[in-house]
Amino acid sequence: MQTQRLEGKPVAEAIEVEVRAALRSVPASTRPPALASVHRGVDGPFRFYLKRQRQAAESLGIRFREEVLAAGEGPEELVGRVRTLSDDRAIDAVLLEHPLPAPFDFIRAISGLSPVKDVDGVSPLSLGLLGAQRPLHAPAVARAALAIARHYGLPLARHRVAVLGRSETVGVPLAMLLLARGVDATVTIAHSQTAALADALKGASVIFSCAGRPGLLTRANVPQGAAIIDVGLSRVEDRSAPGGGRAVGDADAADLEGWAGALTPVPGGVGPVTVAELMGNTVRAWQLAELGEVRG
Amino acid sequence: MQTQRLEGKPVAEAIEVEVRAALRSVPASTRPPALASVHRGVDGPFRFYLKRQRQAAESLGIRFREEVLAAGEGPEELVGRVRTLSDDRAIDAVLLEHPLPAPFDFIRAISGLSPVKDVDGVSPLSLGLLGAQRPLHAPAVARAALAIARHYGLPLARHRVAVLGRSETVGVPLAMLLLARGVDATVTIAHSQTAALADALKGASVIFSCAGRPGLLTRANVPQGAAIIDVGLSRVEDRSAPGGGRAVGDADAADLEGWAGALTPVPGGVGPVTVAELMGNTVRAWQLAELGEVRG
Repeated sequence: MQTQRLEGKPVAEAIEVEVRAALRSVPASTRPPALASVHRGVDGPFRFYLKRQRQAAESLGIRFREEVLAAGEGPEELVGRVRTLSDDRAIDAVLLEHPLPAPFDFIRAISGLSPVKDVDGVSPLSLGLLGAQRPLHAPAVARAALAIARHYGLPLARHRVAVLGRSETVGVPLAMLLLARGVDATVTIAHSQTAALADALKGASVIFSCAGRPGLLTRANVPQGAAIIDVGLSRVEDRSAPGGGRAVGDADAADLEGWAGALTPVPGGVGPVTVAELMGNTVRAWQLAELGEVRG
Repeated sequence: MQTQRLEGKPVAEAIEVEVRAALRSVPASTRPPALASVHRGVDGPFRFYLKRQRQAAESLGIRFREEVLAAGEGPEELVGRVRTLSDDRAIDAVLLEHPLPAPFDFIRAISGLSPVKDVDGVSPLSLGLLGAQRPLHAPAVARAALAIARHYGLPLARHRVAVLGRSETVGVPLAMLLLARGVDATVTIAHSQTAALADALKGASVIFSCAGRPGLLTRANVPQGAAIIDVGLSRVEDRSAPGGGRAVGDADAADLEGWAGALTPVPGGVGPVTVAELMGNTVRAWQLAELGEVRG
């Protein structure tokens, strides 16, 4: 058996087709959507994500603005910036870099953002609305993982699936999307304190891995034939690679080849779909602001 | 092997000891806590819960007020009532009957309540704060299920547990409490669309059943030796009982006797502990209002 490669590109393209249709759903005079991304301006995974955000936004005609925190700005100033953007009628959607190191308080800062503009779906209110089956925005990465599973027709409804990771920004909202009526998966949530991962994964048709631990998934714990959506993203040293490092997921792809039923590549799997879903959330936020409803 | 009976009474008493200590933690001049319960004044399970709320509040010196919706009051008036109570400085804690039949919109009405006063922990913001590991109040029934498991020393950390039910007011918040750092259970959430319940429960040390389906749990699907916290509560006809009916849980207790390791009785299990936890949440809400912090 060959392991199917679940490429993100066709999924991202299908979402972009929907996003473009939604962009055309408004009167021609409507101002274009505007997304603001707040960050510290330092190197790291968010910087990479930011570059992709700008590229995707510009290709779709979405205005993209960066708000870079100055050196002297601390937690209070961050709270103020997010509040100001939340009240700014020229901005539809706001992203805030996370995780943020202390003394910044990500949850406190993002709590000042209107859930309509919280296109990353990461504030407590956004998470609660998702849990209450009244989502405004679900986190783009969680939507992306689900979109890939659906695009490739992986078994979810009435099947057992596993989510590895219990973070409030990825694992928990993804579990909620999978549990929602209409998706109807039976969901096991495992995490760093799970004693026997192989036992927790037994019987799972699809494994959504959001652990950020390279090499976590191998033949030793993945049930034969299971599909893996690899949401984990880590950087490992590789002297032969440009920059001396490369991005890897949680799955040991070489070990799982011929064992797993299907696997998303890293890079090229969840990443590009996440950016597309973020644009989708941004356009929905803009429709809510401009039309009072979501169309398309 | 005999199935251990996990009585709620000693758990409720232990919580009441803590609640009384918390009540003594404030200056003597502080006004007593005040809890308001909003309901339609019709017969049903909430009426029974209400009676217990009043008894528990009065025995602890907590003021208890009922707000009964008049016949002509609809969804808009309910939203207004909850908002008024949220702003009322003489009220610390507000409960709203649920589920509510259409055209009432429970989620909309409860969303107008400050999360500090939402002692049933059922608004989207309360649920999201719980998911973000910043809980103000978790639903009393979910706290009660966890309190019983802890009181009797059931294995949770690093063990597999199952939650049956995915409602935003019971199953989902309970799963979040079990996943929280420090509790550290590996959690499987099953529900009405789960295809093979026995498979989903395999390997679970503790089963938290919140399905409200009498007879759901039997030897055919419960792993031998597993403990069951029976959160389900249904009324079945029984001509020999006063009123022609009696309360039952999800577990078929007769079938599971000698098979399950432990089981909470219904009534007398989760019910009394839920009322005690509600009083605990009320006292914490009052401390937040009067002292700006939780003590004791």
